Amino acid sequence: MKKRNLPLSRVYQLLETGPVVMVTTSYKGKDNIMTMSWHTMMEFEPPLVGCIISERDHTFEMLKATKECVLNIPTADLAKQVVGIGNTSGRTIDKFEKFGLTRLQASRVKAPLIAECYANLECTVVDTRMVTTYNLFVLEVVKAWIDPSVKDPKTLHHRGNGVFMIAGETIRLRSKMK
Amino acid sequence: MKKRNLPLSRVYQLLETGPVVMVTTSYKGKDNIMTMSWHTMMEFEPPLVGCIISERDHTFEMLKATKECVLNIPTADLAKQVVGIGNTSGRTIDKFEKFGLTRLQASRVKAPLIAECYANLECTVVDTRMVTTYNLFVLEVVKAWIDPSVKDPKTLHHRGNGVFMIAGETIRLRSKMK
Repeated sequence: MKKRNLPLSRVYQLLETGPVVMVTTSYKGKDNIMTMSWHTMMEFEPPLVGCIISERDHTFEMLKATKECVLNIPTADLAKQVVGIGNTSGRTIDKFEKFGLTRLQASRVKAPLIAECYANLECTVVDTRMVTTYNLFVLEVVKAWIDPSVKDPKTLHHRGNGVFMIAGETIRLRSKMK
Repeated sequence: MKKRNLPLSRVYQLLETGPVVMVTTSYKGKDNIMTMSWHTMMEFEPPLVGCIISERDHTFEMLKATKECVLNIPTADLAKQVVGIGNTSGRTIDKFEKFGLTRLQASRVKAPLIAECYANLECTVVDTRMVTTYNLFVLEVVKAWIDPSVKDPKTLHHRGNGVFMIAGETIRLRSKMK
């Protein structure tokens, strides 16, 4: 695989811009994918990620049962798949097959990586205390992969109702902010 | 003011793309501003926003004491102010004065709006149970303002270490996703 290990201390750099992610899960021999925008970094290292997953989503049950997932970060060339995956349910279809995506085996979890995504974050669920009230799962990223050839990824950012902003120009400013 | 009311049901469209926001607070006659990227939508309506604010930030104490803030969303023309505000502490300077920003009175909270930002979300803290463990405040947006002349806002998205992505092109795809 052309992807390399990304140090866990740099995971926040991928997520704090707010990209749409595709969450993969695996349960009882079946894999699923969902599209998600409601997530935030919660800690730098080990990297903690809070994410809101509705109990209407099939992923909710799978994540509760397995406590494992992968956050796969797509770029704009995958926009149609991202929307198609958001419009369908894994209860009735195999989304990898339907949308022509390639599974790769993860190293630390059973959920598969999506090969076509430029970054993949293998996660375990470390706190479910806020699931009942807010559908908030706290994930720890235990292994991170990145395609080093992608410099300024054209990530997708959802503005609601099928409108997406594509990541634009990158600027560098003197900052002490981590 | 040229800004108009934004229906609360549309607030998620501003935040789920992951923009850098400037959080304003007001306590004991003093106003403060901080730069923040770690936030997520948690509910559509009433809009709930989860945000992580470090106990090292002056805003942490002010928010705990007052339970009110405003999330102001800047665009790329404010990049230098955004970084400057992130590099300084309100314990020692008046950031409105130092960075030449204009206060506007909010309608529902004491914290001021930043006039130069294209959108402003007046918030109250509705849940502090996760502050001790995760520095996670749950905010409810009680009033939202938007500059209707800004169509595709060039929001800033932090990639870490002073590197920012500026919002690029907008695309529309058929989606059933809210």
